[in-house]
Amino acid sequence: MGKNFADNLLDAIAKKDVPVCVGIDPVYARLPPEINEDPELNDEADSEVALDAVREFCRRTVHIVAPHVPAVKINIAFFERYYAEGVDTYYELVEEAANLGLIVIGDVKRGDVGHTAEMYARSALCDPDFSDLDERVAPDAVTVSGYLGLDGVQPFIDVASNEGKGVFVLVRSSNPSAGAVQDAVLEDGRAVYELLGQQVEEWAIGNGLIGEGGYSCVGAVVAAKDREQTMKLRAMMPHCLFLVPGWGAQEASPDDVAACFKSDGTGALICASRSVIYAYDQDVAGTKYIEMYPSEWHKCVEQACKDFVADVAKVAAATV
Amino acid sequence: MGKNFADNLLDAIAKKDVPVCVGIDPVYARLPPEINEDPELNDEADSEVALDAVREFCRRTVHIVAPHVPAVKINIAFFERYYAEGVDTYYELVEEAANLGLIVIGDVKRGDVGHTAEMYARSALCDPDFSDLDERVAPDAVTVSGYLGLDGVQPFIDVASNEGKGVFVLVRSSNPSAGAVQDAVLEDGRAVYELLGQQVEEWAIGNGLIGEGGYSCVGAVVAAKDREQTMKLRAMMPHCLFLVPGWGAQEASPDDVAACFKSDGTGALICASRSVIYAYDQDVAGTKYIEMYPSEWHKCVEQACKDFVADVAKVAAATV
Repeated sequence: MGKNFADNLLDAIAKKDVPVCVGIDPVYARLPPEINEDPELNDEADSEVALDAVREFCRRTVHIVAPHVPAVKINIAFFERYYAEGVDTYYELVEEAANLGLIVIGDVKRGDVGHTAEMYARSALCDPDFSDLDERVAPDAVTVSGYLGLDGVQPFIDVASNEGKGVFVLVRSSNPSAGAVQDAVLEDGRAVYELLGQQVEEWAIGNGLIGEGGYSCVGAVVAAKDREQTMKLRAMMPHCLFLVPGWGAQEASPDDVAACFKSDGTGALICASRSVIYAYDQDVAGTKYIEMYPSEWHKCVEQACKDFVADVAKVAAATV
Repeated sequence: MGKNFADNLLDAIAKKDVPVCVGIDPVYARLPPEINEDPELNDEADSEVALDAVREFCRRTVHIVAPHVPAVKINIAFFERYYAEGVDTYYELVEEAANLGLIVIGDVKRGDVGHTAEMYARSALCDPDFSDLDERVAPDAVTVSGYLGLDGVQPFIDVASNEGKGVFVLVRSSNPSAGAVQDAVLEDGRAVYELLGQQVEEWAIGNGLIGEGGYSCVGAVVAAKDREQTMKLRAMMPHCLFLVPGWGAQEASPDDVAACFKSDGTGALICASRSVIYAYDQDVAGTKYIEMYPSEWHKCVEQACKDFVADVAKVAAATV
């Protein structure tokens, strides 16, 4: 059996010695003044100008974090809002990050069934049909919804399995209303998110999906908001890597995050988005970084990234 | 209180005297020979040529069905697979359908939280921020996921409420594995899909969301696969219009579909996709239409659309 997406991700993590990922969720209004006060980029109401500014920020941010982290997660929603041109920019950024040696996760949360899921899987991960698009670089993995059951995920698993790519199924989110459905208790005492977690583990151990490192190309999005819940999921999903949002802006504690790892320090990729990419913005990150590097936004981002790396490395090391 | 999306949809239904919707899910391999054997459109492996063929088919199909139906549902997945150019084509088609007086539903099934959902809501429904895109026509309503709870849907509701648009939250799907999560039984005896249905009804009756006809701009996607289940949902969601896939290719019976309507014959928009748009393809629709109109694909589509309209009109009338 060859290496799968999980092996590639574990290799990338080993190389940088830290299981982290920076999330790229660019909002024009939060861009550094150096960019959105540039006379050529200073028009939020013009979609092309705004997109140019967003592209510039994202490219520079990816270059800043690339030496420090194994992976980035690019959230397509923040590009789709610029319509077709935004979608082009998303793929340009995927390619730029891949060329820097980063593992690239496309945060697309697609969720539909049958033929529709097949179509989404092609644009999201890989389309072997188009000879004119051979050179197009798609993400190494994407996030998908699991509410529709296996039918909605299988087309992604098929592409992932054939093309060395990965799928993270949304199991547990950290938003305030996440519990409304996810925490509902079933007659057998499990919560809905546990049922989904168990199903994802079953999908993950499908024929040929497990890599050399023991992890499947099918993983899960698991927010680390509640330590007990996370420990349950970690125990019931031994073959799934967890993509863990919630560091920084979403306020998971180091203890909560520690529960995402196995006792060998593997099993999770911890993601920080706003707390790193907007480190120069005191509404998001406080004054810590702008006091260190006034009006040097890129140094703020780099320092926040380094701090994030150091903090997660400590948490991961402590789990071993 | 003025008219909301539901009122507009009910008006459109009243005008055509039938609560139906044709789903546009174009797959190159199924296009009529007249299109995909055209020397200029005969290259599935070239994404631009294939997209030109798909665009031509969709435009003609929308014109064929427009005199007969109040609404179309355009599935973005089938366009996204052509990347940015596909996204452009999707919006072109939305505009073309709107210009024909059709209510246009964007089947996008987006599902994420907070800022991300806000971004999706803008591109999917309406973005007031860009002065250069004032003329862009977005769908009248879109489909979204509900697994994340209200947080994931609220940004869509906000846009819908402000802009006279609509949201259909996915409650019940008809795919083979739909039951894996949706049918799980909670400790209080309800199924997960009922819990979600009840929540959607609660969201639907929010301040200012109910229109003159008694329906909210927040509706639900409810597959009509099981009559008992559908009746339960219909009873517990009196303010929600149901967008009902499953006619034709997905094999809901007239009896199953009848359960989506209230006793006044309102409450549901029944959708057929493949059984209408591929009526000339015997793998999808059998030989019925190609025997009537050999090598006249547009007449097959028109006849299948008329039959669909007549069949649903009968079902809806029988519920009164």
